[in-house]
Amino acid sequence: MSHYVSEAVIRRLPGYYRHLRELEAEGVTQISSKELGERMRQTPSQIRQDINCFGGFGRQGYGYRVPELKEQIRKILGLDREHTMVIIGAGGIGSAVAQYANFVKEGFRTLALFDVDQQKIGGEVNGCRVLPMDELESFLAGQVVDIAVLAVPAAVARDVCDRLERCGIEAIWNFAPVDLEGEGRDMTVVNVHMSDTLHILSYKMKNR
Amino acid sequence: MSHYVSEAVIRRLPGYYRHLRELEAEGVTQISSKELGERMRQTPSQIRQDINCFGGFGRQGYGYRVPELKEQIRKILGLDREHTMVIIGAGGIGSAVAQYANFVKEGFRTLALFDVDQQKIGGEVNGCRVLPMDELESFLAGQVVDIAVLAVPAAVARDVCDRLERCGIEAIWNFAPVDLEGEGRDMTVVNVHMSDTLHILSYKMKNR
Repeated sequence: MSHYVSEAVIRRLPGYYRHLRELEAEGVTQISSKELGERMRQTPSQIRQDINCFGGFGRQGYGYRVPELKEQIRKILGLDREHTMVIIGAGGIGSAVAQYANFVKEGFRTLALFDVDQQKIGGEVNGCRVLPMDELESFLAGQVVDIAVLAVPAAVARDVCDRLERCGIEAIWNFAPVDLEGEGRDMTVVNVHMSDTLHILSYKMKNR
Repeated sequence: MSHYVSEAVIRRLPGYYRHLRELEAEGVTQISSKELGERMRQTPSQIRQDINCFGGFGRQGYGYRVPELKEQIRKILGLDREHTMVIIGAGGIGSAVAQYANFVKEGFRTLALFDVDQQKIGGEVNGCRVLPMDELESFLAGQVVDIAVLAVPAAVARDVCDRLERCGIEAIWNFAPVDLEGEGRDMTVVNVHMSDTLHILSYKMKNR
């Protein structure tokens, strides 16, 4: 892991993890760069180059041991530890994140949701309480929270992000349709722009 | 639009659309490639090159007219028409998509949700009925449906996708954590791998 890992490789890492988990579930224990490449629609040389970038676990002519490579990538991704989360916005997306069982299995534990809607405050989503937005600062002062999930409307996303930053939150999983990266904040931000993917689908349908 | 548009440019298109809408909302009518580049964290030459790719709307030294460029990109994305959708899986993600008001504003209209869960069947999400999965084929036989939103567990995603293909569905917006592209289907598929983005966040937190 002393190797330099480019942004392009980082973006491909979860795909490797996903495919290796699938292969493991199928009972495959060994795979060549050619076979893995076919599955992931990449050239064998790209596969070898990427895996070398992670530290290299293949032996010439033998391919890769699936369980070992999967486990190594899990560690590289930092999935060998627990992460605590709060979810800002208990609407559709916020509730979906709170309900998604896979995140829990991977050690992402939601401590609470926050909302401004009196109808939602006091309720629960998948066993997690919905607290009033006013209590955000006091809640975060008393808990170790690794990640804030931002599932609020675009119009308030930057203000909420500023509040989270003042509370010392260092990582934002952003579902609001605004780019919060590169705005000078000392936070790690990853955007999930759902609308963007729908627009790409629309483009591709039009240009089939 | 006779220009060849690379996959990389296609992936950037929705970002242009999003930023131009923001600029329009801020009352900005004119923008240079330098200013737009700063906002989108790209070089001015990348911006000019991309926009040339869409057909080119700038005049040397004048920059771009925000409303015109936004409108043009909206058309290029195919957002100047209505799209009908069905949502397969009325769990967290499926319900979130059905509830997301922005999709409706952009002309994506959900006709129905489908689920196997007796608790959910017969219910409504945001005014859309939840129908039994058994009725998928008969429903699709009687409706023009442009897009199927796949919000089912990974284990059943491929089977459901096969059923949709047999019904003539041509576009899949896939939220299941499997790669459905490139499996030889004659469908346009765009994946939203939410877990992947969470894994990238985890990686970046670890390597801050």
